[in-house]
Amino acid sequence: MNKINRVAIIGGTHGNEFTGVYLLKKFEQDLNLVKRPSFETLTLLGNPQAFKESRRYIHQDLNRSFFSQDLQNSTLTGYEEMRAKVIEKMLGPKGNSQVDVIIDLHSTTANMGLSILLGELHPFTLQLAAYLTSINPEVKVCYTQFEKESNLLRSLCDFGFAIEVGPVAQAVLNAELFQKTEELVYAVLDYLERSNQDTIEKKNSPLTLYRHMGAIDFPRNEHGEIKAMIHPQLQFKDYQPLHPGEPIFLTFDGQAIAFDGTSTVYPIFINEAAYYEKGIAMCLTEKQQLEVSNI
Amino acid sequence: MNKINRVAIIGGTHGNEFTGVYLLKKFEQDLNLVKRPSFETLTLLGNPQAFKESRRYIHQDLNRSFFSQDLQNSTLTGYEEMRAKVIEKMLGPKGNSQVDVIIDLHSTTANMGLSILLGELHPFTLQLAAYLTSINPEVKVCYTQFEKESNLLRSLCDFGFAIEVGPVAQAVLNAELFQKTEELVYAVLDYLERSNQDTIEKKNSPLTLYRHMGAIDFPRNEHGEIKAMIHPQLQFKDYQPLHPGEPIFLTFDGQAIAFDGTSTVYPIFINEAAYYEKGIAMCLTEKQQLEVSNI
Repeated sequence: MNKINRVAIIGGTHGNEFTGVYLLKKFEQDLNLVKRPSFETLTLLGNPQAFKESRRYIHQDLNRSFFSQDLQNSTLTGYEEMRAKVIEKMLGPKGNSQVDVIIDLHSTTANMGLSILLGELHPFTLQLAAYLTSINPEVKVCYTQFEKESNLLRSLCDFGFAIEVGPVAQAVLNAELFQKTEELVYAVLDYLERSNQDTIEKKNSPLTLYRHMGAIDFPRNEHGEIKAMIHPQLQFKDYQPLHPGEPIFLTFDGQAIAFDGTSTVYPIFINEAAYYEKGIAMCLTEKQQLEVSNI
Repeated sequence: MNKINRVAIIGGTHGNEFTGVYLLKKFEQDLNLVKRPSFETLTLLGNPQAFKESRRYIHQDLNRSFFSQDLQNSTLTGYEEMRAKVIEKMLGPKGNSQVDVIIDLHSTTANMGLSILLGELHPFTLQLAAYLTSINPEVKVCYTQFEKESNLLRSLCDFGFAIEVGPVAQAVLNAELFQKTEELVYAVLDYLERSNQDTIEKKNSPLTLYRHMGAIDFPRNEHGEIKAMIHPQLQFKDYQPLHPGEPIFLTFDGQAIAFDGTSTVYPIFINEAAYYEKGIAMCLTEKQQLEVSNI
């Protein structure tokens, strides 16, 4: 890993995810909180207009607006399409970014605790993730492999990841989660500083990785309306094993619908408000035990 | 109490309060669920456009759009200002409504459990409320006295009340709360039916009433931005006693702010997402024990 020179902390990529927005405001009032001796730290409010309106987005999800071809397409003039270009100008260009690390702060109505969402399995981010889980067992690490290219904001740089915390309702602050997220950000920054100083202990570390396998939509009728809810037995059970045959949905008439998979999975993002429109009732992951080395 | 001829059940007065919307959809697919022999039941989706966009409202809060003078003012042309007029045409006119009872279904991010919100203390609604708490101790009853006139949708008729359930995030369905709300609606309808049949037992019943005293805003800076969060010790503690000197807020720097009242109160709507913009961090109530008679 080369020296880290610039780190960007983003909050409010979704305007109704207040934890990140208010952490950002706190950092911006006292930049010393996120400065470290060996690198520069930038802060950025992702979607100011959406925050103003307490909405996830104005025209489209900003965090799905970073495909290279969209960033280069000047005929796209929706609010988030333009905002993505502005952000790329500040942090990018994609593939050759001005920042070495992006920390994108998100929150969710699902019981995701303190999650680190990785977009690639670079040894350095795996070591960082292993370190974070070692100092705080509440931290979980997820990995989603993109088929071709990621359209997420954090894909602007090689070492971009999201901190996803929950459960917390949209447009609400939960003080406990706020403080835990803040501690986690400081732990990341301290680790990056020690990496630059080359004072990280050389060793193998265990890492539990939740690898994204796919998503399940709600049952829907011919008009696309949902016909069932997350089953009470599954609600808030993110990261817990779901076995074939166990209930996942409950129809409005009280009928349970069972998981028809053939192997045990670990659902995450169960009942995330913003995913209803994306056709996602939950994401399924498989749990993997890794040994991460920085030797 | 005269005979009840028509009852209106409203869901989605706020478009991102899904419990009511999907209960309504269920009722509309099988009206027998909410029909009773002695009265007619209407169902109405309050704010269809806001539901379509998963937002509380488009231009303004529909549930604050029912002042008589606004309903009569044809120069008001915001979406909710017009929708209020349409709803008044269907259910009103205010003061001489076509329906005898309005049940308005709401949900909240606060831990309100199953709450009945009364706008007036008519003996009949008090008896109904006492009955509901007698069959389900989870049911709580709140009362807000309006200074002059209520601008709430349910004020269109004399016996309008809200069922407010939580905690549930905006734009999310919680199956357990859905089912409990459904049971509560049926209990109301069954009571109204028995009232019409004159088969309600004559007796005195105890009723605990949470009487609205006022609201507390978040601490804010000179730009109106909030400077503190609900204190973790108070979060989700709706209806529990709050004593003078106990912490209610936590600043972003981790400083507790104490309740500076002089008597014990019972906060409700603690950390309701939609109330941030209204300048309400919580509402304060006093707890009263009543004896309700239908003799």
